[in-house]
Amino acid sequence: MSIAIALDAMGGDAAPGIVVDGAAMAIARNAELRFLMVGDEAKLLPLLARRPELRRAVELRHTPDVVTSDVKPSVALRQGRNSSMRLAINAVKDGDAAAAVSAGNTGALMGIAKFVLKTLPGIDRPAICAIMPGKQRSVVFLDLGANVDCDAENLIQFAVMGVVYARAVLGIERPTLGLLNVGTEDLKGGDVVREAAAMLRASPLAADFKGFIEGNDITNGEVDVAVTDGFTGNVALKVAEGTAQLLTGALREGFSRNLFTKLGYLVARPALRSLRERFDPRMHNGAMFLGLGGVVVKSHGGTDALGFSNAIRVAADLVAKGTNDRITEEMSAVHSALEQPSAEAAAS
Amino acid sequence: MSIAIALDAMGGDAAPGIVVDGAAMAIARNAELRFLMVGDEAKLLPLLARRPELRRAVELRHTPDVVTSDVKPSVALRQGRNSSMRLAINAVKDGDAAAAVSAGNTGALMGIAKFVLKTLPGIDRPAICAIMPGKQRSVVFLDLGANVDCDAENLIQFAVMGVVYARAVLGIERPTLGLLNVGTEDLKGGDVVREAAAMLRASPLAADFKGFIEGNDITNGEVDVAVTDGFTGNVALKVAEGTAQLLTGALREGFSRNLFTKLGYLVARPALRSLRERFDPRMHNGAMFLGLGGVVVKSHGGTDALGFSNAIRVAADLVAKGTNDRITEEMSAVHSALEQPSAEAAAS
Repeated sequence: MSIAIALDAMGGDAAPGIVVDGAAMAIARNAELRFLMVGDEAKLLPLLARRPELRRAVELRHTPDVVTSDVKPSVALRQGRNSSMRLAINAVKDGDAAAAVSAGNTGALMGIAKFVLKTLPGIDRPAICAIMPGKQRSVVFLDLGANVDCDAENLIQFAVMGVVYARAVLGIERPTLGLLNVGTEDLKGGDVVREAAAMLRASPLAADFKGFIEGNDITNGEVDVAVTDGFTGNVALKVAEGTAQLLTGALREGFSRNLFTKLGYLVARPALRSLRERFDPRMHNGAMFLGLGGVVVKSHGGTDALGFSNAIRVAADLVAKGTNDRITEEMSAVHSALEQPSAEAAAS
Repeated sequence: MSIAIALDAMGGDAAPGIVVDGAAMAIARNAELRFLMVGDEAKLLPLLARRPELRRAVELRHTPDVVTSDVKPSVALRQGRNSSMRLAINAVKDGDAAAAVSAGNTGALMGIAKFVLKTLPGIDRPAICAIMPGKQRSVVFLDLGANVDCDAENLIQFAVMGVVYARAVLGIERPTLGLLNVGTEDLKGGDVVREAAAMLRASPLAADFKGFIEGNDITNGEVDVAVTDGFTGNVALKVAEGTAQLLTGALREGFSRNLFTKLGYLVARPALRSLRERFDPRMHNGAMFLGLGGVVVKSHGGTDALGFSNAIRVAADLVAKGTNDRITEEMSAVHSALEQPSAEAAAS
């Protein structure tokens, strides 16, 4: 069964080159893929002409308009009605594609996707979700910035989406779940996280809810799914990226100091290469926009073809595993369980 | 002029050994120091007997009580009236010491310090502050967990405390300041950070306020002082620590894979050693509790003697530079400036 994916061919620092090359890499791995490539025909046709294998799997949809990387979401929404980003999302809405992938402006993509696709039943706000490398395992982490202010109900919805993702796409039968906080004791943290913890304990997720976790528990891989509000999640993600860059930069500097350390680098190269491969951000590329009424994946704006091909793979996985239907079902089960005790409380 | 520092000799995983050894290291570097060592005499006397040099600079204050690492702040406050931690803080209050240093339970230390020492004039809530290593420079970062919920006024107070610290203790003439947010545009983030930004722009700190910064700007060293609420700051700090551990662990693993990579390690050692020295957490040990009516420094609970000696150095610096008086002055100037326009607004 083929899966049609709409590609915003003009989004990202090195578009449309990396989009076309990434699509070619993705199709070489998965021959079931079909692409609806939205963008400037004059730029795309020459690139596709060189890739007959890919060309056969591509339907082109021409538009000269693009959403630039610095435009505000509200402006992109009003003025970008004919942009490659908007038309890619529209294709999901219209059923021409099962998912959309874009390396463009994150805020604009979320704004347009929310406006066009709305949210899934039972979900008030979509979240941005990514996989973080951890010590014992990779961790599904959300929200990474879609929602700056969150209430307990939002956090519960993020928890459900993260757990369904881990179960359906990563194949973890019973994913464990943690709520990010400043301490692991029950009394720590603000009202919102404490209320969310109480709700999770009364829900069908209770058995796999490990309570509060701290920042270092993510990198330790203490749980499969880590949930927080979009402000904290965004800062945490960027601090992790920044720390990794700082350390690898200092390592490079250390090795380039003198002839002896340079020799050290040559001999250490195999060990360093294995490190680089494990933490290659391109392998973790593709932030899922979970909770929307359609599958949308955001590739990193600065990624290359390999990274973009991985974002396509993530989108195809989300579609193949029926993630959105699973989220709706699980959310409904959680809401039923949570309504139970409050109905009793109202009666008493 | 000698500086008397009260030491909670029983706080920390390896107390009292690291406290005594750390004090000896500190006094070897700075002969002006005097210590009021609070703790179990039976344990301290044998340790001090082996260090006659240190012994002469130490006044012992015996108590058998300790605040354990897992006790709640409220319990430590009620039941720990005779603990080594409480008596060390009391010594600051009573003028027997100019500062207190403890490697014990952070929450208990903050709770006791707040209760005994109160806050400085103009400061509603103290903050936990530390130095983060960055690419271009080290960054003064606060609050790291003392205040989970913060309003704009709290963030302004943290900003003043951070700037005064950078100016007085680090000797940076005009420290630049950033407010942690999820994006650098003015419209990003929640109400609290936006309000705080507006207040900073109307204050004497305006010229050096660089606006919003993101998580990776801390490790990039974009500003001298980075301000956020205690929830976000605590998560950010622990994510940074966790990421550094994850990477160094993976590096170690990469080098221990086979004979060839082990050889690589031997040759690469000088480069790796320079990296370790730069990021040695013991050199950055000592989280300042800024905003209290007395100088209190928290050493990491798991640190060794070198780390503890650095926490003592931080405390001595805070005292020598008159940091608390500077904070009171600067805060008063900021409040005067902020009251100006609102008085006009009320009149119009």
